Amino acid sequence: MKFNKENIRISPNAQIGKNVKIGDHTIIYDNVIIGDNVIIANHCVIGEPLHSYYWDEKYENPVTYIGNNSLIRSHTIIYAGSKLAAHLNTGHRVTVREYTIAGEHCSFGSYTDIQGYVKLGNYNRFHSFVNIGQNSETGDFVFVYPFVVFTNDSTPPSEDLKGPYVGNYTQILTGAILLPGVRIGNHSMVAANSVAGGTFEDDSLIQGNPAKVLGKLSKMPLFNSKGKRHYPWPYHFDRGMPWQGIGYDEWLKNQEE
Amino acid sequence: MKFNKENIRISPNAQIGKNVKIGDHTIIYDNVIIGDNVIIANHCVIGEPLHSYYWDEKYENPVTYIGNNSLIRSHTIIYAGSKLAAHLNTGHRVTVREYTIAGEHCSFGSYTDIQGYVKLGNYNRFHSFVNIGQNSETGDFVFVYPFVVFTNDSTPPSEDLKGPYVGNYTQILTGAILLPGVRIGNHSMVAANSVAGGTFEDDSLIQGNPAKVLGKLSKMPLFNSKGKRHYPWPYHFDRGMPWQGIGYDEWLKNQEE
Amino acid sequence: MKFNKENIRISPNAQIGKNVKIGDHTIIYDNVIIGDNVIIANHCVIGEPLHSYYWDEKYENPVTYIGNNSLIRSHTIIYAGSKLAAHLNTGHRVTVREYTIAGEHCSFGSYTDIQGYVKLGNYNRFHSFVNIGQNSETGDFVFVYPFVVFTNDSTPPSEDLKGPYVGNYTQILTGAILLPGVRIGNHSMVAANSVAGGTFEDDSLIQGNPAKVLGKLSKMPLFNSKGKRHYPWPYHFDRGMPWQGIGYDEWLKNQEE
Repeated sequence: MKFNKENIRISPNAQIGKNVKIGDHTIIYDNVIIGDNVIIANHCVIGEPLHSYYWDEKYENPVTYIGNNSLIRSHTIIYAGSKLAAHLNTGHRVTVREYTIAGEHCSFGSYTDIQGYVKLGNYNRFHSFVNIGQNSETGDFVFVYPFVVFTNDSTPPSEDLKGPYVGNYTQILTGAILLPGVRIGNHSMVAANSVAGGTFEDDSLIQGNPAKVLGKLSKMPLFNSKGKRHYPWPYHFDRGMPWQGIGYDEWLKNQEE
Repeated sequence: MKFNKENIRISPNAQIGKNVKIGDHTIIYDNVIIGDNVIIANHCVIGEPLHSYYWDEKYENPVTYIGNNSLIRSHTIIYAGSKLAAHLNTGHRVTVREYTIAGEHCSFGSYTDIQGYVKLGNYNRFHSFVNIGQNSETGDFVFVYPFVVFTNDSTPPSEDLKGPYVGNYTQILTGAILLPGVRIGNHSMVAANSVAGGTFEDDSLIQGNPAKVLGKLSKMPLFNSKGKRHYPWPYHFDRGMPWQGIGYDEWLKNQEE
Repeated sequence: MKFNKENIRISPNAQIGKNVKIGDHTIIYDNVIIGDNVIIANHCVIGEPLHSYYWDEKYENPVTYIGNNSLIRSHTIIYAGSKLAAHLNTGHRVTVREYTIAGEHCSFGSYTDIQGYVKLGNYNRFHSFVNIGQNSETGDFVFVYPFVVFTNDSTPPSEDLKGPYVGNYTQILTGAILLPGVRIGNHSMVAANSVAGGTFEDDSLIQGNPAKVLGKLSKMPLFNSKGKRHYPWPYHFDRGMPWQGIGYDEWLKNQEE
């Protein structure tokens, strides 16, 4: 009982790559481009039209792009105008609103809600229930845990929206709230349930409400770590990372060449 | 590729207004009344039967009402017995349980979960992932941000449920928890990640766990506001509000006449 | 307009019990066993295949088991390899990942996300938006409220995952975060928005970030309780519990016999 092509609706204006599998009850709208070897599971909507679709007779759907080798799990909705690079991996019931740009190898957990007009680097890994407000931006290898919010309005409600920026390799732990315009450096961590605003340097362990720097993340003898240092984490974790098998230093060296 | 009437199921006992569009795979149960110019996107369920439907052969679905000019986005579920007035706007995968009453121009963000037996005023604007417990009540122009919970059981588990009350124009920011029976006045704000119980006067800035009044909201030089006052916010924000184009004072004057 | 058998897909290798009702657009995969008198509403996926299904031509779906008298509400996804005992009750859009074991009479609220490799006791009652990480374990009669997270990685990202353990009758209130490896005893409570790590004895009221024991839960004059003691709660709450109608002491006595 693999893919049954049951009740699928694909616009004649969509471009579907080679060796693409599409699950039952999935809808693909106009001007969607799907790369090769992509799997889209059942009950998904790809290229969901923007609001004016419902009212404007002359509406034309902006181009939506899903890169090669992506896996989109069931009940996921990706809006028109989004460009998600190769090796995308989504959980179930993910929502990606319009004009979201994501680099290669991004992973969005179930129920994650990306509000659009967002720019994400490569190898971002979002767990379930992540909420990313408009105008947010991230570097590469950013990990975000459940119930984290990237907010963007410091005097709500207003029209003055400033998204957070999160640097390379940084971890935003469960339930943390990033305040509008916050800038968090590379190789940092925002602890669980923190509320972080302002500007934070690289290698910061950030905690509290309002969040403050507890010290350099790389120096912290962290909870449950038995005195061992774990950060920078790329030296100790490589599953799905481009340095898997070769080590972080070797990979870095290759990158520089 | 607009609306295809693919695989839609509408009860013969439903009443559908003029110029209504219904998306693929949507199900409309008995005794649903849909106003004019309503759009219901794909994979929705309107008039979802109550629990006894599954067991009681004589079950009759209570009346569900969706007002004129509403837009209900895909995968949304609205239970029977709910009455949602004109100009409703939902995100994706919203759940509205039974006997929810909502005024005109309400907006419920994606994944919002309204547990039923709730009474909401006009122009309530809920962002994604809002969780509203039973017996909650709100005034008009209430804005609620992601991961806010309106709780109702102060000694869980118990049968003594008291919902929160939130006054007109009040903002409940990201991740705040409203404790059972809390009463929050008009033109107030509960800050991000606060846990608020008790009674709060109008024009309060409420923050912390347990939440306390930091001062009058209208007097606060708020974060990132460059010394300018933003509250009462209706003087500085009008998108989608009834005073759009004419100004809040003018609108208030018209209301009084 | 009861069950219409519209567009349902059931694997020939699934076993369906007596008097089972299946809603429109629902998909049941290979090697699913459904007990008697089960109701599965519309747009569900039961026995969702594991990741290797998409790549491995020889993939065989592990056995999925749904016990008698269960009610699975619409848009729910249950992965292959999970065994959920009799009288399961789910809300809408629940996700249960692979190899989740749950005892009898468990209830999972809408949008709840159980990440798999989890072992739950009997009569667990999870509200909406609960996120249970891998390797978590619970006793019986555990109640979990919205936006609670059971985390499992104390130095993220790492491969050293340790789940929380929650004892019998314990309440984990709204927005609480359980840190990796936390052990919480029986008849305890973790207060709203707390961040709890370490080991906690039976009958503890646990609060704060980092969470500490405020005292014995059974001795607390709790908020809004008018001086009355509510805990141990089984003496004051019985809806849906096995001591309903006979009282907790009587039921305990019967259990011992």
